[in-house]
Amino acid sequence: MPTSLLKRLVRTVVPPPNVAARANRHSARVIDAWRELLSDRGEVSGAMIAREALAAYRGLSEIYRPAFFSQLAAEFLPEPDTLRTAAERYLAEPSAAHLLQLQQAATSPRQELFRRLNQAPEGTATLVTARKHLLAGLGDYPDWQVIDTDLVQLFNSWFNRGFLNLQRIDWHTPAIILEKLIEYEAVHEISGWHDLRRRLQADRRCFAFFHPALPNEPLIFIEVALVKGISSSIAPLIDHEAPLLEPEKADTAVFYSITNCQPGLRGVSFGNLLIKQVAQRLGEEFPRIKTFSTLSPIPGFSAWLAANTERFSRQDAHALQKAVAGLGTPDWHRHPALAASMHKVLAPLCAYYLLHAVRDGAPADPVARFHLGNGARAERLNWLADTSARGLKNCAGMMINYVYHLDQIEDNHELYSREHRVAATHELRRLSRECLLHDSTQRR
Amino acid sequence: MPTSLLKRLVRTVVPPPNVAARANRHSARVIDAWRELLSDRGEVSGAMIAREALAAYRGLSEIYRPAFFSQLAAEFLPEPDTLRTAAERYLAEPSAAHLLQLQQAATSPRQELFRRLNQAPEGTATLVTARKHLLAGLGDYPDWQVIDTDLVQLFNSWFNRGFLNLQRIDWHTPAIILEKLIEYEAVHEISGWHDLRRRLQADRRCFAFFHPALPNEPLIFIEVALVKGISSSIAPLIDHEAPLLEPEKADTAVFYSITNCQPGLRGVSFGNLLIKQVAQRLGEEFPRIKTFSTLSPIPGFSAWLAANTERFSRQDAHALQKAVAGLGTPDWHRHPALAASMHKVLAPLCAYYLLHAVRDGAPADPVARFHLGNGARAERLNWLADTSARGLKNCAGMMINYVYHLDQIEDNHELYSREHRVAATHELRRLSRECLLHDSTQRR
Amino acid sequence: MPTSLLKRLVRTVVPPPNVAARANRHSARVIDAWRELLSDRGEVSGAMIAREALAAYRGLSEIYRPAFFSQLAAEFLPEPDTLRTAAERYLAEPSAAHLLQLQQAATSPRQELFRRLNQAPEGTATLVTARKHLLAGLGDYPDWQVIDTDLVQLFNSWFNRGFLNLQRIDWHTPAIILEKLIEYEAVHEISGWHDLRRRLQADRRCFAFFHPALPNEPLIFIEVALVKGISSSIAPLIDHEAPLLEPEKADTAVFYSITNCQPGLRGVSFGNLLIKQVAQRLGEEFPRIKTFSTLSPIPGFSAWLAANTERFSRQDAHALQKAVAGLGTPDWHRHPALAASMHKVLAPLCAYYLLHAVRDGAPADPVARFHLGNGARAERLNWLADTSARGLKNCAGMMINYVYHLDQIEDNHELYSREHRVAATHELRRLSRECLLHDSTQRR
Amino acid sequence: MPTSLLKRLVRTVVPPPNVAARANRHSARVIDAWRELLSDRGEVSGAMIAREALAAYRGLSEIYRPAFFSQLAAEFLPEPDTLRTAAERYLAEPSAAHLLQLQQAATSPRQELFRRLNQAPEGTATLVTARKHLLAGLGDYPDWQVIDTDLVQLFNSWFNRGFLNLQRIDWHTPAIILEKLIEYEAVHEISGWHDLRRRLQADRRCFAFFHPALPNEPLIFIEVALVKGISSSIAPLIDHEAPLLEPEKADTAVFYSITNCQPGLRGVSFGNLLIKQVAQRLGEEFPRIKTFSTLSPIPGFSAWLAANTERFSRQDAHALQKAVAGLGTPDWHRHPALAASMHKVLAPLCAYYLLHAVRDGAPADPVARFHLGNGARAERLNWLADTSARGLKNCAGMMINYVYHLDQIEDNHELYSREHRVAATHELRRLSRECLLHDSTQRR
Repeated sequence: MPTSLLKRLVRTVVPPPNVAARANRHSARVIDAWRELLSDRGEVSGAMIAREALAAYRGLSEIYRPAFFSQLAAEFLPEPDTLRTAAERYLAEPSAAHLLQLQQAATSPRQELFRRLNQAPEGTATLVTARKHLLAGLGDYPDWQVIDTDLVQLFNSWFNRGFLNLQRIDWHTPAIILEKLIEYEAVHEISGWHDLRRRLQADRRCFAFFHPALPNEPLIFIEVALVKGISSSIAPLIDHEAPLLEPEKADTAVFYSITNCQPGLRGVSFGNLLIKQVAQRLGEEFPRIKTFSTLSPIPGFSAWLAANTERFSRQDAHALQKAVAGLGTPDWHRHPALAASMHKVLAPLCAYYLLHAVRDGAPADPVARFHLGNGARAERLNWLADTSARGLKNCAGMMINYVYHLDQIEDNHELYSREHRVAATHELRRLSRECLLHDSTQRR
Repeated sequence: MPTSLLKRLVRTVVPPPNVAARANRHSARVIDAWRELLSDRGEVSGAMIAREALAAYRGLSEIYRPAFFSQLAAEFLPEPDTLRTAAERYLAEPSAAHLLQLQQAATSPRQELFRRLNQAPEGTATLVTARKHLLAGLGDYPDWQVIDTDLVQLFNSWFNRGFLNLQRIDWHTPAIILEKLIEYEAVHEISGWHDLRRRLQADRRCFAFFHPALPNEPLIFIEVALVKGISSSIAPLIDHEAPLLEPEKADTAVFYSITNCQPGLRGVSFGNLLIKQVAQRLGEEFPRIKTFSTLSPIPGFSAWLAANTERFSRQDAHALQKAVAGLGTPDWHRHPALAASMHKVLAPLCAYYLLHAVRDGAPADPVARFHLGNGARAERLNWLADTSARGLKNCAGMMINYVYHLDQIEDNHELYSREHRVAATHELRRLSRECLLHDSTQRR
Repeated sequence: MPTSLLKRLVRTVVPPPNVAARANRHSARVIDAWRELLSDRGEVSGAMIAREALAAYRGLSEIYRPAFFSQLAAEFLPEPDTLRTAAERYLAEPSAAHLLQLQQAATSPRQELFRRLNQAPEGTATLVTARKHLLAGLGDYPDWQVIDTDLVQLFNSWFNRGFLNLQRIDWHTPAIILEKLIEYEAVHEISGWHDLRRRLQADRRCFAFFHPALPNEPLIFIEVALVKGISSSIAPLIDHEAPLLEPEKADTAVFYSITNCQPGLRGVSFGNLLIKQVAQRLGEEFPRIKTFSTLSPIPGFSAWLAANTERFSRQDAHALQKAVAGLGTPDWHRHPALAASMHKVLAPLCAYYLLHAVRDGAPADPVARFHLGNGARAERLNWLADTSARGLKNCAGMMINYVYHLDQIEDNHELYSREHRVAATHELRRLSRECLLHDSTQRR
Repeated sequence: MPTSLLKRLVRTVVPPPNVAARANRHSARVIDAWRELLSDRGEVSGAMIAREALAAYRGLSEIYRPAFFSQLAAEFLPEPDTLRTAAERYLAEPSAAHLLQLQQAATSPRQELFRRLNQAPEGTATLVTARKHLLAGLGDYPDWQVIDTDLVQLFNSWFNRGFLNLQRIDWHTPAIILEKLIEYEAVHEISGWHDLRRRLQADRRCFAFFHPALPNEPLIFIEVALVKGISSSIAPLIDHEAPLLEPEKADTAVFYSITNCQPGLRGVSFGNLLIKQVAQRLGEEFPRIKTFSTLSPIPGFSAWLAANTERFSRQDAHALQKAVAGLGTPDWHRHPALAASMHKVLAPLCAYYLLHAVRDGAPADPVARFHLGNGARAERLNWLADTSARGLKNCAGMMINYVYHLDQIEDNHELYSREHRVAATHELRRLSRECLLHDSTQRR
């Protein structure tokens, strides 16, 4: 990708010598503080030195971070001679003892460094933030990968699901946590405290995972509406003047938003667990609720459609072109005739996209990949379900329900992971077969 | 050591075929459950399968554990071909990328297995218990070392000091925790609830570290007496009818017992941190308390003395022999003249032992090694400080105070770890110089 | 009762003049401190002066308390002139305004005094203790009644059921509360921590009411065993080596002990509420439990029997005399033949006593009065149910079950309070009709 | 007061017969439910019937409340015959026994009724709300006074200071409490969550009293700014963009707002206690803070000035008239010359008003009466301290600081309550002496 290359060249262009020197100087000070922490003194006065070491990092100006991470990537490496010897011995005789030696020799001292940093107050939070900074530059500096590997290994241990607490969030929750919901919610923006309040009332539920070391920081949260029948459009769920439903009358829980809050924990996933735990808990509180469904966006549809136009035969192309052109009409969803003709063409295409478009052996759509891989079933495509600007742009206003049948999750997941088969209703399969593309592709 | 060898031979003697077969069968069932947890299904239904996997282990009879651990040591190994290739590549070109590949290839899948086990309720507790079982047999089955290495690496991450809570233990603490103190205290036994109660009154303090996943299990606890002047004998501190001192009048905090509670966390140490944090906290609560001292046993003295008798010249030996013979006299500490003559000989020897007897470059006495390595100073030797049977046997009734000067800890530690010099008072040094051995050995 | 009179004369005998003077002096100091609290200064510096006023009372030696309470009874009275005027006005014209004036004029300033005392830390606890002291002497000093009336009125407001918290007591409860259970349990003594522990295990429940101002002081607690079938004897319930029953298999909750903990709250009752709330809560936790029964003593039976021997006709008297004589035989309950013959005579008499013996229009037996007035039904008389010394003495070893049917409580209570009819099973009624007394008394 | 009389006539004008009948019917249903609660059945099934009785009141439409309260005032009265007899006996012989009988006979059964209502969930909250309703109509229906007297007596017991918890309110407080601050703050309005957040940051403090039965309802709260020097104007304290001061650098705590939250608790006061407890707590947290001052409005000044114009001699009147006329000039405070001339006249008058204007033997200004009666000292008058519309209108933009010297509070209060002398600085006394009124009035 030439653009990205150019961008990278621009970003990583060698800075003027004095700037680079200053960056190295500042960066070296942090490295020194961190090296001290790994020393003998760090052993005896760990918490105090860790505090200084963290403060040094926090005090580092953003512009010096690249120099710092580059130095960090080159430091705290396994001792090369020891590692080489251990590798040779293992190759000569792959015994248990030699394996152990090799494992120990290969382990980054950086991991012990990070563990010691964690002794100071706010240690965990600072390390999660540091990884956020790291990830932001990782594309440009591939050699930072070694740092990320060490951090991820640590975070996988620390943020083990067994250590997370599922907590209900409601109007009794401290403001310091609630304001994070407003800040983090990205899919269906929360416009303020008034809006938030509606989302926490009696016919709504919100749950989050917390880690004991980050008591005021939700790691991930999910918003649920308790309704009658599976919701087919998002507007009533996020309207802060929507009338209250008595939750005892609900038969369905609709998960309408899941938000990962910590960019620094990317890839350390808990989302799949969250949905199932919440479904189970709601089932216990409301025995009448039998259906657990999402109302999900299809973020990749429009892009996929644009990239695949050449695959259509001439006669089909005409209808498609009209539909695609329709998408360009301002407020097209308010014109019933136009919308109806578009519906006829786009809905089957979207069903096809969800069930058959693949990337790396899994559904091309990232949200579909998450829920289907997680054992849910694609249930129903909803036309004009999200008429926000983003909804119209990304998937022509369509949304989809993925349903979690707690007793089918395992089978669905097994089919998916062994045979790459997607669980879907007959209706969706039928719809996808109406698709113009269907005959010509024949997937599984 | 022939005895130990014999013991091992007896223990590991091949069991009759049918027993072995049964052990393998039971063990294999647990291994199967654990393998399932590492599979794809474990990914999607982690918590549920982890629960079964843990239950399988818990249900395993003690007599089948050796078979199980032996199988476990042989399973969940790094993929040998991948590891071999990675090692070869790294040796051919030790680049960052090849290092990463080698690290990943060398990592035990067992670690991921343990992380997944932790998802189930009681996961952490069960894994800590499993390591206790493992350690109990590790002497006899050295090939289990690989399991221990994986567990320790994980526990070092999980039980990071940053995740531990320091909690005061007093009479407001739940009984489920208090009964563990009675159970675990090994140095100065707590004889029951009545005794415990005295140790938690206003002129006493008890603190423990807790981990969020083990809310009812102290990891380590320390008992403190608030007194006037450094205590020179243990009896008044553990007498449950001792009169109460108003804590505001105390000028000294005496740490008279530290107990590691979890054998399964051996080697994952927090003791050094605990003393310093408690000292700091007490200093804030009681500004009049300026001295933080231990009253510690010298567990290795008698054994060292017995092993070193041949080092004494003839004329010295006589006095020593009399003193050692005195130790054999019943209730010798109640005979003033005898005790005085023994004091003259044994006290200097003990001071010598503490300051100069070394093993692997550190003090030979394990308690001395802990406190001196931790930055404390050897302060004062106390004659007839512990006249319990154990105290008389292990160190002729002597105890020592190690004092923690918060502002000298780092320097002491540095001297210790760089130059192997032990911090001690002039009095103790002088005492050790009176020792019969002194001239002939000349250590620093 | 001459003994009591004598006792009173002895107790209240005029002390020698100097002692009396000293008592008055000490007592007057407390009264002064309390008067200060009611002054203007008490208004502005209430908490501080209340602290001193309470300390003054706490510092008063037990022997000066009578002088103090007698002074207190004579102080802090309504202003007589104001009250007389108000009474006259009301009699002249009983208007609402005059009623108000009379109410205000009649109100003891002592109540405001007690309210102000409560501002200091430990205020509530000290006042409850003071009433305990007061009640201990009330029999001898009837003029203290006015103090008690004021305290009771206040406590009725403060310890309103709406302010009490029902808390489960188990092994997670702080030791400071648990030790109170050991101290207070009077009916079936708890012999120590080991015994207590058994009473808090999985097949047992203990609940207590707490008031927010006395967080470590249970007001009343109830002990429950979860069993199969209604228990007919107490021993298995309080045996601390009794085998554990899986609570999920229980169909019956047996309330085997209720203890009022605070003598200072006598007459401020919450026991009836406690049983019903606990029954409801257990019903929610264990849907299989359908029966809520007590296993209760019959404390008044033996005394009643002794006082009513003359009511028996000659031929009956013989059997009775033999039975009563049997009670005097050591270990009579271990002689089957003797016990059987006594059973035949005493069981009907006891049933009669429970159902028909009345005092002040309510059951003569105090425990029966409590449960029957509370809406329970007398269910079953159990022979040799309590063979402790006290059990054998008070009711010939018999115990009774009172059953709480949550949906019949109101009707039972209504019958009881309107028509003085006692709810009982047919079996019990039949048993009582076998009684020797029955024909000759004919009650309802 | 003819206006008020007219108003009352209009309000209480006899409604058309059918409306009145309906009101009586609805009202009678609630009375019936409450009567049931006082019955025997209420004794045994208290909580359940209390629930119904409370629900009945809550379900009563606002328009039927007057009928209800009027019925309630006429019901649940002391038994007249008993009371009459008791009064007569007391008059005949005012013994302790007769006093007791009179007290019991005079006590309203309504109090027991209210106590029983409190057993149901939300009982306390509903009764506090009921009193709010009652007070709203009390001016028009003086016969409701008897209800209020009973409620106040109960609330004085229930909301005893000893039962209240002082809690800090900050950003960790649940939203359900924080939103109440926004709702209740009346003096310096909180414009929303953003504004609230600034008032809870590190250089601000907010404390509230809570009662255990109303955990989400602050009874009264106080807002404090930690500053350098006593604040002379309100704007910087309530500006939500004001820069943060490091609280460790503050030497003064300024109480800039106190809000009583519960109209239903009018006259059950805790404000004086709150200030002193907060001052003490802040003094402990910030030893550098030595000054505790309010920044208070002078709400009665303008009205007093208008009512007293005739008291000025001719030559003074001219200056005064110009100053008063100035107040009518739009934005007068932005005209320096005008404001300066007004300052000269109005400041002394205001000082005079604060120190000398009396009503019922206490300062005429209600805020002055509260703080001076509470032991504070009038410190400094601040010109143009509150230029909000209300501030300009009520007291010509002036505000005053009352300072709480914790060690002078008692003396100040004593002077105040015994000799009606107000504590004030020399500066304020001098200023008040410049006042035009001074010579002619000569107070004390």
